[in-house]
Amino acid sequence: MGRSAAAAKSKAAAKATKVVPPAADDQPVIALDLASPAQLSPAMQAYFQKCQDKLGFVPNVLAAYAFDSAKLEAFVAMYNDLMLGPSGLSKLEREMIAVAVSSQNRCYYCLTAHGAAVRQYSGQPILGEQMVMNYRAARLDKRQRAMLDFAVKLTAEPWAIEEADRNALRSAGFSDRDIWDIAAVVGFFNMSNRVASATDMRPNQVYHGMAR
Amino acid sequence: MGRSAAAAKSKAAAKATKVVPPAADDQPVIALDLASPAQLSPAMQAYFQKCQDKLGFVPNVLAAYAFDSAKLEAFVAMYNDLMLGPSGLSKLEREMIAVAVSSQNRCYYCLTAHGAAVRQYSGQPILGEQMVMNYRAARLDKRQRAMLDFAVKLTAEPWAIEEADRNALRSAGFSDRDIWDIAAVVGFFNMSNRVASATDMRPNQVYHGMAR
Amino acid sequence: MGRSAAAAKSKAAAKATKVVPPAADDQPVIALDLASPAQLSPAMQAYFQKCQDKLGFVPNVLAAYAFDSAKLEAFVAMYNDLMLGPSGLSKLEREMIAVAVSSQNRCYYCLTAHGAAVRQYSGQPILGEQMVMNYRAARLDKRQRAMLDFAVKLTAEPWAIEEADRNALRSAGFSDRDIWDIAAVVGFFNMSNRVASATDMRPNQVYHGMAR
Amino acid sequence: MGRSAAAAKSKAAAKATKVVPPAADDQPVIALDLASPAQLSPAMQAYFQKCQDKLGFVPNVLAAYAFDSAKLEAFVAMYNDLMLGPSGLSKLEREMIAVAVSSQNRCYYCLTAHGAAVRQYSGQPILGEQMVMNYRAARLDKRQRAMLDFAVKLTAEPWAIEEADRNALRSAGFSDRDIWDIAAVVGFFNMSNRVASATDMRPNQVYHGMAR
Amino acid sequence: MGRSAAAAKSKAAAKATKVVPPAADDQPVIALDLASPAQLSPAMQAYFQKCQDKLGFVPNVLAAYAFDSAKLEAFVAMYNDLMLGPSGLSKLEREMIAVAVSSQNRCYYCLTAHGAAVRQYSGQPILGEQMVMNYRAARLDKRQRAMLDFAVKLTAEPWAIEEADRNALRSAGFSDRDIWDIAAVVGFFNMSNRVASATDMRPNQVYHGMAR
Amino acid sequence: MGRSAAAAKSKAAAKATKVVPPAADDQPVIALDLASPAQLSPAMQAYFQKCQDKLGFVPNVLAAYAFDSAKLEAFVAMYNDLMLGPSGLSKLEREMIAVAVSSQNRCYYCLTAHGAAVRQYSGQPILGEQMVMNYRAARLDKRQRAMLDFAVKLTAEPWAIEEADRNALRSAGFSDRDIWDIAAVVGFFNMSNRVASATDMRPNQVYHGMAR
Repeated sequence: MGRSAAAAKSKAAAKATKVVPPAADDQPVIALDLASPAQLSPAMQAYFQKCQDKLGFVPNVLAAYAFDSAKLEAFVAMYNDLMLGPSGLSKLEREMIAVAVSSQNRCYYCLTAHGAAVRQYSGQPILGEQMVMNYRAARLDKRQRAMLDFAVKLTAEPWAIEEADRNALRSAGFSDRDIWDIAAVVGFFNMSNRVASATDMRPNQVYHGMAR
Repeated sequence: MGRSAAAAKSKAAAKATKVVPPAADDQPVIALDLASPAQLSPAMQAYFQKCQDKLGFVPNVLAAYAFDSAKLEAFVAMYNDLMLGPSGLSKLEREMIAVAVSSQNRCYYCLTAHGAAVRQYSGQPILGEQMVMNYRAARLDKRQRAMLDFAVKLTAEPWAIEEADRNALRSAGFSDRDIWDIAAVVGFFNMSNRVASATDMRPNQVYHGMAR
Repeated sequence: MGRSAAAAKSKAAAKATKVVPPAADDQPVIALDLASPAQLSPAMQAYFQKCQDKLGFVPNVLAAYAFDSAKLEAFVAMYNDLMLGPSGLSKLEREMIAVAVSSQNRCYYCLTAHGAAVRQYSGQPILGEQMVMNYRAARLDKRQRAMLDFAVKLTAEPWAIEEADRNALRSAGFSDRDIWDIAAVVGFFNMSNRVASATDMRPNQVYHGMAR
Repeated sequence: MGRSAAAAKSKAAAKATKVVPPAADDQPVIALDLASPAQLSPAMQAYFQKCQDKLGFVPNVLAAYAFDSAKLEAFVAMYNDLMLGPSGLSKLEREMIAVAVSSQNRCYYCLTAHGAAVRQYSGQPILGEQMVMNYRAARLDKRQRAMLDFAVKLTAEPWAIEEADRNALRSAGFSDRDIWDIAAVVGFFNMSNRVASATDMRPNQVYHGMAR
Repeated sequence: MGRSAAAAKSKAAAKATKVVPPAADDQPVIALDLASPAQLSPAMQAYFQKCQDKLGFVPNVLAAYAFDSAKLEAFVAMYNDLMLGPSGLSKLEREMIAVAVSSQNRCYYCLTAHGAAVRQYSGQPILGEQMVMNYRAARLDKRQRAMLDFAVKLTAEPWAIEEADRNALRSAGFSDRDIWDIAAVVGFFNMSNRVASATDMRPNQVYHGMAR
Repeated sequence: MGRSAAAAKSKAAAKATKVVPPAADDQPVIALDLASPAQLSPAMQAYFQKCQDKLGFVPNVLAAYAFDSAKLEAFVAMYNDLMLGPSGLSKLEREMIAVAVSSQNRCYYCLTAHGAAVRQYSGQPILGEQMVMNYRAARLDKRQRAMLDFAVKLTAEPWAIEEADRNALRSAGFSDRDIWDIAAVVGFFNMSNRVASATDMRPNQVYHGMAR
């Protein structure tokens, strides 16, 4: 094939390819063909309804887990305790950890859903973007910077965490109980990131536009 | 300091240092000073008793979580569903995943506790060692090798898992439901490894000698 | 300090810390104290005016380079040729490369500015997010997927690119001239990412809200 | 294939697969088909006999090298000088280095054989396990911790070792002669790990149960 | 095939293979089949003539870019400003950065061409070799060591550069304007390394013997 | 300090710093203060003399080991067997492995000394440079490329070598005995690289100019 023919072909290809509008970017929710959703227990029915009422939709991660009641309930119990229960960390701080961890693991589902949460809780859309892109670019105070440094190191090199790392958190004002909570949130998203990546879990499209 | 003096000093140091017997290698259970254990709920009391009866001891991870009932119960519910509930994966296979993941993350607690479980379930002490050291050294059939390749890739590079990786599991005989279970166990130990590493969680010493 | 005092202190800290609203997230534009902007040449004056007219603002990268006319003009000449000049790659494709490369390098400036460009050129806000978060999550055709696989490998492991990698692009329909253009855009953003990261270059805040 | 059929097939597969008992985990000794063992020289005959008398078996690494007398003798000479000759490092310390290096390189042969040696020399089975799993989990004094930090850095990033690293050893009480010995042992196991991994060298099964 | 036959075959193969003399190591200049060189503009004709007069040859990177006048001119403008224009960095220092960056990226073209430049500018052939092999092996003063540490970190982990890194340069005596120049040279070679690696660009053979 | 003062200071610094001529780049031979060279045994005296006669100098690695006769003799015996003894690999091929491994480990000593050996054995100075810079840039036949791919993978990820890697060597014409030799040379230089890096071992300056 001569050069000009190749060039012509290449140009045609460029025109012909347009990214197909992802009208259904979040369908199917996961790339696994699992059983139909189990009949939700009354507690889970109520929880899904609450999501619908508060958020206007049921997060896809719940839809994904709904194929099995025991798994759904265990996931919801742990999530709600960690992210919404009593803690020395604010809810925003827990969401900041969620996004910084998910950025290290490049998890599309969690970056989308929890990036929206950071935008919402903080009222600062840019903060959400910074957590997604590179938490080091955010202008954080010493406390939150230490928290995220620990979170990302624990994600990337868990084997290298030692007393000096815990002491850095203590110096930044965290109690030992707070350190547990940081570790637990980091751990939880290292789990969720992997379940989402393993199954190609798709975030509800609505997240992308929230709290911009 | 002259050379011979330095040499003498060095030799003396070598003699003087002996590793202090880790009589208390598993004390304290974690390096955080948390609240005293909460009063266990009846369900958790029964569960701890069951551990005592079956294993002869309560795993330290449970002792660590016991400072807060909600956290303990959520952890136990998820653990028991994943590792002991119905699945297309045998219990041994789930433990093999646990150890291969923990080896990638070099988690002392989980390698010790779940390495013992592999030895016990399989009746093959060497298999447990191989999961700890390098799962590629074990002579596995195609199914279990594919399972562990997926588990370790999902641990090390979760962002790179794609349909081809899921298809490799399907070719090795796994159903989509099995793939969920593999992902969930991998996720769970990526969580536990990080909670354990963040807190310097110490495995009960008794594990080391079990099922040798 | 007793436990309850520590807890109280920790809670107070959580309340006290609120992320300061980044009213001036893009000020100063870079973290270096350089000379005042040089007098812009007529060509550059016209170019800045054109930016103002078309975008409504002058991108901060231009403001950053404006301290030295020769550097500004060289940067603009190369940028405009690569991103806007004739090519077998569409402008959207060149921006997709820009963002996928910048995601590998976690560059806050480029992810923000070029993420907005992908949203705008494609009319698909989600595509922009996927390029930022993990290009593998986007549902791309074979051509664009091959293009981004090459771009990210060339970014992460330039020493490992060989004829097989070029052939993968040829199989996906790219001409040799297209391969040059892909390489040149990848190279350009590997440069820009580093200038931006080295200087803490801040993207104009307005980018964050564009084309959502 | 319908879901229930797939589930049934998957369950059957789980039952059918049992890990084949590795009755012969250490046969063949390596995955290369080399010449029959050369006739051992009198010196090597005596050495093998000494192994048999002292350990009860000939380590497989010696069996592997025995195909060529010159290679066997060079290996034995270097090994014995390094690991058993005069040094400011105790024999236990040299074995600790061997295992920490082999853990970094995930070498099945060396972790097994030298893990047993650490258990034996120290009289502390747990110390051997910690060297295998993550040396940072062991409660070491400053001297041994500095020694292993140097060993693992020299293994993972040899290009980054500089005067500051040597000074850290000097501060921990090591003489320059000791530093040579640490470097030499680290180097030796970086060699042995690679010969073992390249050939799938199998440790004598008896090691696994020693000194538990 | 018996062992001796295999050995014989292997020996024959060893004899038969001799590396073919790379009489044409720099032909073709790149592995892409691009259009014939465009007619050079008068400015570029003069520039190529100047190279011929001063160096005795036209660097292959220019021959590679010559297929397109706009690309060639933009490249030359940026290169000349950065590497030859006014700066607080000496020309040798800029070349040292070029080589240290290219070593991190293992770029055959740039290591060859700019390694020669370091040998020539410094009059110290060994310094050129050290920049190619491992800049940490060179005995540099504090200023140049800080400069190269920054350059290599910015190349390997651009996302991790922060104010502390800039301050390390300031402490070593660099002005903010110098920091821009360091960043710009690092950026430029991260671009050039990737264009060269993507196209298998071959350095003029004559470089290898220059200034030895 | 005003901008022009800073600029002036910076320019002065640039002029003031000139790299001190490394008249003594190879002195001292290592950065450890060891005992004076032991009295060489007659065999080693003869060997040093032979080096002097053949090469015109004694390689610094031998001078470094000479502080202890047992270590020197063990090193020499292993080196001579591996690099000069009978093998299906040519001496040039063994030197190519030495340099490719040392490039992966960025070892100044070994790259210098064995890079010279590749230049000398091959009569192709460029081949030596390519082994130092990036072996993938050399135009090798299938046999030598497979050999170096194995060598570099075994160096970088020894834990991942498996039967498929050995089979790639067999397909490229290597016997099992050859595979042992490749592994042994790779292992040896992974050892030597680390001893050299740990001690800042300096290559004899004369190597740099040999066989150019």
